Amino acid sequence: MNRRVMYGFKDFISLDEAIKKFRENIKICNLIEYIDVKDSLGRISSEDLFSPIDLPYENRSVVDGYAVRSIDVSGASPNNPIQLKIVGKVYADKRYNGKIIKNQAVLIFTGGYVPDGADCVLMAEDCKVDGDELIVYKQCFPLQNISKKGEDFGKGDLVIKRGTKIKPFHIGALLSLGIKKINVYVKARIAVIATGSEIHDIDEDMEGIIDSTRPMILSLIKDFGLIPVDMGIVPDDPEMIKTKIIESLKKSDMVVITGGTSVGEHDLVPDLLESITSPGIIVHGISMRPARTTGFAFNGNIPILMISGFPVAAYISFNIFLKEFVEKFYGTTIDPTPIVKGRLTMRLPNQAGTKSFVRVVVKRINNEYYVEPLRLTGSGILSTLTKANGILVVDENSEGFEEGEYVDVILTQPPEVGK
Amino acid sequence: MNRRVMYGFKDFISLDEAIKKFRENIKICNLIEYIDVKDSLGRISSEDLFSPIDLPYENRSVVDGYAVRSIDVSGASPNNPIQLKIVGKVYADKRYNGKIIKNQAVLIFTGGYVPDGADCVLMAEDCKVDGDELIVYKQCFPLQNISKKGEDFGKGDLVIKRGTKIKPFHIGALLSLGIKKINVYVKARIAVIATGSEIHDIDEDMEGIIDSTRPMILSLIKDFGLIPVDMGIVPDDPEMIKTKIIESLKKSDMVVITGGTSVGEHDLVPDLLESITSPGIIVHGISMRPARTTGFAFNGNIPILMISGFPVAAYISFNIFLKEFVEKFYGTTIDPTPIVKGRLTMRLPNQAGTKSFVRVVVKRINNEYYVEPLRLTGSGILSTLTKANGILVVDENSEGFEEGEYVDVILTQPPEVGK
Repeated sequence: MNRRVMYGFKDFISLDEAIKKFRENIKICNLIEYIDVKDSLGRISSEDLFSPIDLPYENRSVVDGYAVRSIDVSGASPNNPIQLKIVGKVYADKRYNGKIIKNQAVLIFTGGYVPDGADCVLMAEDCKVDGDELIVYKQCFPLQNISKKGEDFGKGDLVIKRGTKIKPFHIGALLSLGIKKINVYVKARIAVIATGSEIHDIDEDMEGIIDSTRPMILSLIKDFGLIPVDMGIVPDDPEMIKTKIIESLKKSDMVVITGGTSVGEHDLVPDLLESITSPGIIVHGISMRPARTTGFAFNGNIPILMISGFPVAAYISFNIFLKEFVEKFYGTTIDPTPIVKGRLTMRLPNQAGTKSFVRVVVKRINNEYYVEPLRLTGSGILSTLTKANGILVVDENSEGFEEGEYVDVILTQPPEVGK
Repeated sequence: MNRRVMYGFKDFISLDEAIKKFRENIKICNLIEYIDVKDSLGRISSEDLFSPIDLPYENRSVVDGYAVRSIDVSGASPNNPIQLKIVGKVYADKRYNGKIIKNQAVLIFTGGYVPDGADCVLMAEDCKVDGDELIVYKQCFPLQNISKKGEDFGKGDLVIKRGTKIKPFHIGALLSLGIKKINVYVKARIAVIATGSEIHDIDEDMEGIIDSTRPMILSLIKDFGLIPVDMGIVPDDPEMIKTKIIESLKKSDMVVITGGTSVGEHDLVPDLLESITSPGIIVHGISMRPARTTGFAFNGNIPILMISGFPVAAYISFNIFLKEFVEKFYGTTIDPTPIVKGRLTMRLPNQAGTKSFVRVVVKRINNEYYVEPLRLTGSGILSTLTKANGILVVDENSEGFEEGEYVDVILTQPPEVGK
């Protein structure tokens, strides 16, 4: 644990190490809901799901055409047409009563079950119909234009792994297998407490500083598909903060506290957390910029994140730890973030030993991306996030980048198109 | 317009050309809602929004320290400490009553307003306090550790452009400027009709083919933040389909019809659309794979998309046209999609003149991505979407790729981590 001292952190640990300690204290979610597949978009499967059936149930035609025996049309060509007799018709999802024998054909529509005896389907455009005669101009190979029984999913095949985030195509797949309901993890509840006697909610008609960090954090939680629990604002009063933390711990899977979390005279949160949580503070002070005052305690397996009241620092650090929380709590992998490679328009030095999250503007000019860093400092300057459309992460081992160097940027908004 | 003929499309146009015709017929949304900023996540701003104030209102300290006159501490160093007198205290969002004069200092906390007379803030760790004396060991430059009035947003600065998708940091920025409500476009309503006598809904207890395409499309619409309007399933009956289309046109901004949209005997939709919509069918048949039977009509400015009943084809083409619809209807740019560059594990030929959307599995091995194409055919084989985690788009002018070539893949799920 990092002990804090007045007006300064004793030491800062690396972000990677902080994340490791954060993850190892989180226990996987043990609350499961059984919900309609139709309502499962974005939820996380809590079980491996296997196909109860073969899909298709039987061999089916994937074209409109004629089910035939491949042997009967062997060698057919425009110069060597072969004549068959049309003996029936099969519509989509329908069956032919009977078996095809030598030189017979059955008209079949997409989705129809291939009649017994037939082993391929000729496409309609490769034949000509004359009454009940079929003139065939092309040969057909066994299984051609047929979707084989079990080809999509075989009975017992894994359809969805535990920890899968349900996408529209999973919904399609599950329903097509006749699966109506699935088990998913319950949505995590994340409580957010803002501290600070100087801030007030926008809905309170007061002079002074409007709390923008708490609503931003609440909407980030919503954006991740989780349930934000708004605990409001508490002034810098130890008893009130303490009561709010205890209340939050009762109704959430993670608690986030913004403001009052550093080591200044008004930063009451760390000492309070030490007194009311167990095992208490695990990390306080991370060698990153912005958000180096980030820290966290645990009460049992419930993390209590301490993040800056400054919106930019709060955004950067909360994004990182929220992602880690979701991955560990649900045993899932977060959807990939869009990244582009672009050329730096200016030199970007980095402070040794610090992982920097630089807000940048990415502009596409012709087919090349250019990356312009916004100011490095100013963790209170929200406009650097709204004006930026990307975050450039500079590793702690890097001394930075030269002008013109290629860098990978995480896109937070669409790239600008430059002239 | 492309006239259809029985058992075959007369011609296919390129996807780019189809998209162009699609976009040029869509009119921008003219329905606007005035909503709480707190509830605006993911919505699209319908106006340019300017800052009503300077933020910060006045110069503020960004550290805990001492507000001083830079001239008084010029040359201060550990070997040349300079002594000042502490004359007061300023908390966050508070003011000092009075003006700092020569050799005075005021203790100031982060967020406090810089007193008149002072032009910089010394960090607490660069000084020592002795009673009301401050011993200064470091000099300080004008404006150092100060966030200047209007530095975040100046009065009249553009905060959000029309067409911006609201992210958590926009919510933070708007609230910090005291903006409680904003104008956004109303969520588009997209009606989905499934056609086909052979399919039924999973909630109907029947034998046969369960409609998986319609629920998948409905969830894709939801995933885009729009309102899906489920029009259910209609059998292959011209009057019933017609009634359903007319009803859908009345209650939506776009209509999607799955199945019955090709040129087979049961494909009733194109003829019906020609008879009941004006200007009618604009495109039918696109040189892409899968989903070459995709088409669309317009009734006034309302697009009616005809997509395959086959889930994979439907997924691919609907994704493309939904994105185009949203961009044009809202004058916005869709969030960037995650793309990775990886090496093909096998040769991938492409049919000349066809734009192919190949389902692939992307695997990360060490620091390199490998791309394994799944089967090219089988637009009914949903498992190619659930097993895939990426789509490789092969341009119509490309003859394909060789084994080992680097390709860009759109990620639809997280990459696998290989051994």
